[in-house]
Amino acid sequence: MFSAQTYIERRSALKRSVGSGVILIMGNEEAPMNYHDNTYRYRQDSNFLYFFGISHAGISAVIDIDSGEEIIFGHEFSMDDIIWVGPQPTLAEQARRVGVYRTEEPNKLPERLKKASKVHFTPPYRFDNMIMMSEWLNIPTSQLKEKASVELIKAIVALRSIKSDEEIVQMEHAVNITREMHIEAMQKTKAGKKEYEIVAAIHAKALEGGGNLAYGTIFSINGQTLHNHYHGNTLTDGRLVINDSGAENAMFYAGDITRTIPVSKGFTEKQKEIYNLVLKMETESIVALRPGIQYREIHLLANKIMLEGMRDLGFLNGNVDEMLAEGVQGLFMPHGLGHAIGLDVHDMEDLGEKYVGYREGLERSTQLGLKSLRMAKELEAGFVLTVEPGIYFIPELIDKWKSENKFINFINYSKLDTYRDFGGVRIEDNCLITPTGSKTLGNPIPKTVEEVEALRG
Amino acid sequence: MFSAQTYIERRSALKRSVGSGVILIMGNEEAPMNYHDNTYRYRQDSNFLYFFGISHAGISAVIDIDSGEEIIFGHEFSMDDIIWVGPQPTLAEQARRVGVYRTEEPNKLPERLKKASKVHFTPPYRFDNMIMMSEWLNIPTSQLKEKASVELIKAIVALRSIKSDEEIVQMEHAVNITREMHIEAMQKTKAGKKEYEIVAAIHAKALEGGGNLAYGTIFSINGQTLHNHYHGNTLTDGRLVINDSGAENAMFYAGDITRTIPVSKGFTEKQKEIYNLVLKMETESIVALRPGIQYREIHLLANKIMLEGMRDLGFLNGNVDEMLAEGVQGLFMPHGLGHAIGLDVHDMEDLGEKYVGYREGLERSTQLGLKSLRMAKELEAGFVLTVEPGIYFIPELIDKWKSENKFINFINYSKLDTYRDFGGVRIEDNCLITPTGSKTLGNPIPKTVEEVEALRG
Repeated sequence: MFSAQTYIERRSALKRSVGSGVILIMGNEEAPMNYHDNTYRYRQDSNFLYFFGISHAGISAVIDIDSGEEIIFGHEFSMDDIIWVGPQPTLAEQARRVGVYRTEEPNKLPERLKKASKVHFTPPYRFDNMIMMSEWLNIPTSQLKEKASVELIKAIVALRSIKSDEEIVQMEHAVNITREMHIEAMQKTKAGKKEYEIVAAIHAKALEGGGNLAYGTIFSINGQTLHNHYHGNTLTDGRLVINDSGAENAMFYAGDITRTIPVSKGFTEKQKEIYNLVLKMETESIVALRPGIQYREIHLLANKIMLEGMRDLGFLNGNVDEMLAEGVQGLFMPHGLGHAIGLDVHDMEDLGEKYVGYREGLERSTQLGLKSLRMAKELEAGFVLTVEPGIYFIPELIDKWKSENKFINFINYSKLDTYRDFGGVRIEDNCLITPTGSKTLGNPIPKTVEEVEALRG
Repeated sequence: MFSAQTYIERRSALKRSVGSGVILIMGNEEAPMNYHDNTYRYRQDSNFLYFFGISHAGISAVIDIDSGEEIIFGHEFSMDDIIWVGPQPTLAEQARRVGVYRTEEPNKLPERLKKASKVHFTPPYRFDNMIMMSEWLNIPTSQLKEKASVELIKAIVALRSIKSDEEIVQMEHAVNITREMHIEAMQKTKAGKKEYEIVAAIHAKALEGGGNLAYGTIFSINGQTLHNHYHGNTLTDGRLVINDSGAENAMFYAGDITRTIPVSKGFTEKQKEIYNLVLKMETESIVALRPGIQYREIHLLANKIMLEGMRDLGFLNGNVDEMLAEGVQGLFMPHGLGHAIGLDVHDMEDLGEKYVGYREGLERSTQLGLKSLRMAKELEAGFVLTVEPGIYFIPELIDKWKSENKFINFINYSKLDTYRDFGGVRIEDNCLITPTGSKTLGNPIPKTVEEVEALRG
C-alpha cells in the first residue's frame, strides 16, 4: 500500500476534477466459480485500489464532494470471521491507513445515495454490483453502463493514465517478475513436454514474485490463434511457441510481455526471417515513441515495416502505401499494436476505450487489425503502454481471403500456402513515455535470436 | 467427455424423475475479473457438465419433458472466433457428441421459456445468469433462489449423489493428481521458504495433471485459521503447516485432501500427540463408514475420540458424553467432519445442503462445529465424501471462552495457554461408500508420522 498521503491526494484531485455531487466507487465482492462459496481468487476493482487501496471483498466507498466526506462502507469482522479467515486489522484501521476516517455498515450506503442530488459512478462490469446498483439507484441493469458519469470517467482516466514515480517503481517490479516467468519458459521449453507443464512453471514464478498472474497465460504452439488458452498440446520440434504472460505484483500492477521461442534449440532460417521482421517492427516502434505522436501512427508504422519486409520475402507484390491504405496487413497482423497498462493489463478498459485510447475527433477504424487497436490517441509523458507487433499465418483466414480473391494483385497466395503450419511470432514490451521519448520497463528480457537461443541450452 | 449414451441416460432419468414441464439448465458465462474481458479461468456449471458435458461459455440447454425435445442454445462460431480462439468443432457437432441433435441461437431461448407452462430451474449462483433469468422468467433477482424447482433439485441430487463406476475412475484420477500435489509439498516444505513458493509448486502439479485446482489452496503455518488463503508467511522451524489442496481433473472431478507437515524435519513430541489423535479420529471415522449410518453420527464419533484424547492429554476433565452433549468440542474442531464431493468440491452446494446433506426430519444444529457440518444424513453406497477431522488452537476463541468462563469445569485453560502458538492439525481423505463399508479413493498418500517424516529428508 502507498502512504495515506498518496490516496488523499488522488481523491482530492478527483474531487476538484468532478466538481460536485457524490462519487460512488464500488469495490468487488468475491466471485463465485461453480457455487457461491467456491470463489475465484479475489481481485479488488482497480479504481477502488487507486483511490482507496484496500484489497478486501464487500466494501464500497462514497466521496461526497459537496460536504467533503469520505466514507468506506463494510462490515466489521466477527468471531466467525476470525475462526475462518483469521485475525486482521479492523476495517476502521485499514481505512485510516488510506486517510479515511469514517466507516459505516453496508446497509447505510443505499440511503446515503438516495439523499444525493447527483451520484457519479463508473460503468459496472461485475454483475452482482449491477444488481445492487440497479436497486439503489433505481436504474435498470441494462441501462447502468450508459448512465455512468462521463465527468467521473474522464477524471479517472486523466489521473490513472499518467503514472507517478511510485507507480513506475511498482510497474518495473511487475515486469521484472514477468521477466523471470519468460526466462523460465525459455529454459524449460523442450520437445515432448506438454504446454501446460511450462504454463505451470510460468505461474509458479508469478506466485513466487508475491502476486499472481495479471491475465490468463497464452503459451501455445498455435500462436496464430491470438487468444489461445488451450494448453494441452505437446511441444514438437520445429514449432514456434508464443508465450504471452505477465505477473500482477503484490500492489496489483500488471506486466504484459510476449516472447516467441523455438521448441527446437534454434530457430530455422525460415523462422528467423519472420522473427527478425517482427523484432524490427517492435524495436522501430519503440524508437518512435514520444509525447505528442498518435499511437495510431506507430501502429501504421509497424504495419508498413511488416508490409515492406513481407514484400522483400516474396509474400507480397506492389506498392506498400497502397497495401497499407487498403488493409492488406490485416491478414498477417489482425490485432492492434498495443494498449495502456497499469493496475489493469488493459488499463481502465472498464471505463471505455473511447476515453482511454481515443478522444473526440479520433474514432475507431473498422479495418481488420486497426479495429482491434485499443490505444490510438496522442501519447503523453507518463503513459505506459504495450508494444506488441506480430506476424501470423492463420490458415482459415488465408483460405477465406483466397476464396474471395481478396487483394489477389498484392498477395502471393502460393507462397503463403507453404507457411500454413508456421504458426505465429509476437514480441511485446512495456514502455513508459518520457518527456523526450520512451523507456522500456524492467531489466532487459532476452529478445534477439541470439539471446533467445542462448537460453535454449 | 463420457459417451453420448451416458449423457442420454442421465437426461432420461432426470425426465422420468421430474415428470413434466420444461427443464432449464443454465451454462456459465466467462467471469470478469477486473474488467469485462479479463476473465477468470472458465468453469462450466457442474449440472450442465453432468447432463450436457460441454465445457464452453455462453450456452444453455432446455429439456422439454412433455415434447421430449432437448435443445442447446448458443452461437455458432464466426471467423473472428477462429482468429482469436482458434478453430474448433461446431456447436452442433459438440452437441451431437452428447446426444443432442438440436441447437439454436441464444435469442430463441426466452421465447421457448415463455411458451412453457412450467419452467424448472436450479438456484442460480452466477449473477449474470440471475439477471438473464429474471428477465426471461419475470421473477425479481432476489426471488430466484426461492422459486427454484424443488422437484428438479431433488431429482438432480438423487442422480449426482450416487457416483457411477466411470465417475469413480475420474475421481480416483483427481485424487491421484492431488496425491502428487501433497507429496511435492512434503518434499519442498523447508524453513526459510515462503508459503507461496510451496503453493506455486502445488499448483504446478495440478496443471501438470491436465486440469487445475478444484479450490483455492490452503497452505499455512496458521492452520488454526480454517480458510486461510494468505500465503505470505515465511516457513519457520518448529511450526506445523496445513496443506488443504486438491486438483480438478480434465473431466472436472475434484479431489480434496489435507495433510499436516512439520516445517522442521520431524514432529516434536507435543505435535505428535495432537497429530496422532487427529489421525485416530480420521482412521476410526473411515472404519465406521457404511451404508445406512448417519454421517452426523460419525462426526460425533470423531468428536468423542477427540474429547477422550484431549482429556487423556490433560486439556479436559470430566465426563466425555456430557462434554459432547454440551458442545465443548467446538473449541478444538469448530467445523464439520466432511461433505459430499464430486464435480464440485462441496458437491451440489448450489442446490442447497438441506437436500444434499440433510433431509426432512434431520435439521442442522446451531452448535459450534455441528452447525458447519454439510453432510449429516444416512449414507448410501455410491456416495463419495470427505473425512477431515482437525484439532486447532485458536487464541482468539480460547480467549473469548475463557473470558466468559465457558465450560470452566471441563476445560483446563492454563494448559491451553501453553498451546497458543501450536497452530492446528487436519487430516483429510476422500471416501466412496461401498455396499459393505468404504473405500478410500486414490493411491495411499503419506499419512502416519513415520510416512510424513520419511519425505521430509
